Amino acid sequence: MASNLIVPVILAGGKGTRLWPMSRSQRPKQFLALIGDLSLFQLTLKRLDDPTRYDKPVVVTNSEYRFLVAEQAQEAGVELAAVVLEPIARNTAAAIAAASFIAAKDGPRLIHVLASDHNIGLDDAYRTAIDTATAAAKAGRLATFGITPTSPATGFGYVEAGAAEPTGAHTVKRFVEKPNEDKAKEMIASGNFYWNSGMFLFNSALFLSECKALAPAVYAAAEASVKSATTDLDFTRLGESEFAKSPDISVDYAIFEKTKLASVVPSPIRWSDLGAWDAVWKESTADEAGNVTRGPVNLYNSKNSFVLSEGAHVAVNGLDDAVVIVSEDAVYVGKLSDAQDVGRVVKDLMKSPKTAKLTEEHRTSYRPWGGYSSVLMGERFQVKRLFVKPGKQLSLQKHHHRSEHWIVVRGTAEVQIGDHKQMLRENESIYIPQGEVHRLSNPGKILLELVEVQTGSYLGEDDIMRLEDTFGRI
Amino acid sequence: MASNLIVPVILAGGKGTRLWPMSRSQRPKQFLALIGDLSLFQLTLKRLDDPTRYDKPVVVTNSEYRFLVAEQAQEAGVELAAVVLEPIARNTAAAIAAASFIAAKDGPRLIHVLASDHNIGLDDAYRTAIDTATAAAKAGRLATFGITPTSPATGFGYVEAGAAEPTGAHTVKRFVEKPNEDKAKEMIASGNFYWNSGMFLFNSALFLSECKALAPAVYAAAEASVKSATTDLDFTRLGESEFAKSPDISVDYAIFEKTKLASVVPSPIRWSDLGAWDAVWKESTADEAGNVTRGPVNLYNSKNSFVLSEGAHVAVNGLDDAVVIVSEDAVYVGKLSDAQDVGRVVKDLMKSPKTAKLTEEHRTSYRPWGGYSSVLMGERFQVKRLFVKPGKQLSLQKHHHRSEHWIVVRGTAEVQIGDHKQMLRENESIYIPQGEVHRLSNPGKILLELVEVQTGSYLGEDDIMRLEDTFGRI
Repeated sequence: MASNLIVPVILAGGKGTRLWPMSRSQRPKQFLALIGDLSLFQLTLKRLDDPTRYDKPVVVTNSEYRFLVAEQAQEAGVELAAVVLEPIARNTAAAIAAASFIAAKDGPRLIHVLASDHNIGLDDAYRTAIDTATAAAKAGRLATFGITPTSPATGFGYVEAGAAEPTGAHTVKRFVEKPNEDKAKEMIASGNFYWNSGMFLFNSALFLSECKALAPAVYAAAEASVKSATTDLDFTRLGESEFAKSPDISVDYAIFEKTKLASVVPSPIRWSDLGAWDAVWKESTADEAGNVTRGPVNLYNSKNSFVLSEGAHVAVNGLDDAVVIVSEDAVYVGKLSDAQDVGRVVKDLMKSPKTAKLTEEHRTSYRPWGGYSSVLMGERFQVKRLFVKPGKQLSLQKHHHRSEHWIVVRGTAEVQIGDHKQMLRENESIYIPQGEVHRLSNPGKILLELVEVQTGSYLGEDDIMRLEDTFGRI
Repeated sequence: MASNLIVPVILAGGKGTRLWPMSRSQRPKQFLALIGDLSLFQLTLKRLDDPTRYDKPVVVTNSEYRFLVAEQAQEAGVELAAVVLEPIARNTAAAIAAASFIAAKDGPRLIHVLASDHNIGLDDAYRTAIDTATAAAKAGRLATFGITPTSPATGFGYVEAGAAEPTGAHTVKRFVEKPNEDKAKEMIASGNFYWNSGMFLFNSALFLSECKALAPAVYAAAEASVKSATTDLDFTRLGESEFAKSPDISVDYAIFEKTKLASVVPSPIRWSDLGAWDAVWKESTADEAGNVTRGPVNLYNSKNSFVLSEGAHVAVNGLDDAVVIVSEDAVYVGKLSDAQDVGRVVKDLMKSPKTAKLTEEHRTSYRPWGGYSSVLMGERFQVKRLFVKPGKQLSLQKHHHRSEHWIVVRGTAEVQIGDHKQMLRENESIYIPQGEVHRLSNPGKILLELVEVQTGSYLGEDDIMRLEDTFGRI
């Protein structure tokens, strides 16, 4: 093999809805700091920060999240081997196959496929599971991690373990779909069943040969899309028409349930998929009354509740089993034990144009140069707060329907209007007439913050004509 | 008597806490639109809009609410006889005595004392009660309105009716303090007990003579404070040192429980003191599931709940008996049946400097010239939205610690900086340097709206030096 280090392949393209109103389609679960100060994606990167064991990770995501991936990796101080962009969603089989081709471009590699949005305890049990899976992969097996169940969960699939192999892994007897509770209890009682975690470890050559044999259309599409991939800044864009030809199928269905080479690694590890607010509550440290709070929250006479606010101050009185989630523009209130229902609520909100936006974006949007919040929307005006990172610049752009007033409130801006450039310091302002070509840069060493007042008859984000952009967004 | 018309005396100085986070000490219950589009104070004014029966009302309030009273009366198209400002809170006895002196300055008058924050059905039963009380007052009685109880409420005092009088009123046998539930049920079963509503109707001369006899210190303080009162714009400010000498006592304790001249008018009227959110819910029209919502709210699988939002979009799922109140900067979640607890929550929030402000003011503040909202507070900057009514102007002022950028987003502004005046149209901006004397006016016919960006080391509202003001606020 080209190297003995494992290449982590992190799947970061998912759009879960059940952590609304925090998760939005433009900023889903994996990019949120739900446990501590780092996002789940960043926690995943940190878990892989062991140069004796892992090579630089390959991240598979889609175009919409590429800057989030790049920025969060940079923030976490982790260098990525590649950020692979799926041009269209084709489930996990094609994504993992394409990532395998890319990771193994210089020869076969050990590959560890993992989710970007799970919470895993980094302890000896975890490291032992990785070691066992590595040994199994080296012994010519496709290893899947089977989590030792801690409850008869009905939200996961299960794997039944067969005979033990010399590596400590077991043969796979069969995969079982999400069961009902009775079935789940029965399986757990037998002691041979594990939760199907969606984490794998294998040799790329073996995985790809099994893929070619068992799912040839997936293999062909992945191979062709990698061959026709283009590089755009630090991103690897898979060929769209090629990738689109792959069946929309999970790696479990396409390969693991069919191959004779699968092994399951019994993994008695602390693991949660943080599937809904009740799971986040369970994974957090509760007070004596069983309450977990984050943000400006006061609880009175309440227990077993989860209250999180990123905006308004919240007072909760006399509740049990409650979940209250307050974002800048939306509030969810329900029972913690009904947390699975959030997905259904989000589906309903998506139906109406008035509420669909609340499922898509937050008031604060992140861009490769920094970001902005809409702080006030009037009838013919809008106020935004902009922040530009040191050394970054926005695209050279113009707007057909709005003019803009910029007031610098922190740092120093360089503003180009037409052919003229000027510096703007704290407490200075400038006016950008409608239709005028302009560009904003932060030439300084500290964050630039400014208040933008837009006026005009149309204030949508899509009234922007980019003439030049350092981030390839033209 | 000087006139046969009744002078309404509206008590509008209260600061209830139990409708938090909507009610704040700077904008309490009576000034909120809780039932329909008018505030409770405005609904009270509308109920008195019958020139065959009522003279112009006298409103008793305190200095903090004077502009709210004046504006809301103007908005409702009601002319007030006087807005009497209590210099210090001394409970209802002194307030009613002072208002009686003022209402009767040209001779004795019939006076109807009423709260500004009750919800009352304007129907025949109500008019009959007023007629009966008027007849009783003319017959030399101090009439109190006894509401026919609809439940064994423990939150009100009760009045026991004695023998019927020729007017239809009854003698008062006794007043009973807030009872426990058993006692309340017993009283209701007897059929002779009524809720003590805090509404009265009497001849000012009789009331004042009883006050002089039964509560001479209240009488003396009220009389002296009216004699030393000053007029400030349209407001009558009672003499502070004189008014302060009154005992802090309710009119019930000071006079009605002592006088031999009290009569109770049995009033089978639709009445609610809207004392807490459960009362507001009861007074609103619920859907089939017993839910009442106001603002951007989606309910799923919920019943018997009250959900109100003035800010974020709210989704409530799977709750029964819930109250969820969302204001711009605070959220309350609890059981509707625990609505009385809100007062305790507010007292707790008042204790901490971090949360006390949430009990005092809203993000939007109203001023006699219009108002403003704080839309964004940064470390050394703040963004406000200002609105100035047509024809109004702010004070001539300066700030020691901040400079201001103004951007007109609607209407036309006249801006004076130093001695220089200039007009500013939509989409134009101006800069007010720190320490510079300035004044903002709206010379136009439509509302002026502007976005103000303040920068400086201190951005508190109290950094304002007023050099001249049309509203007497220097």
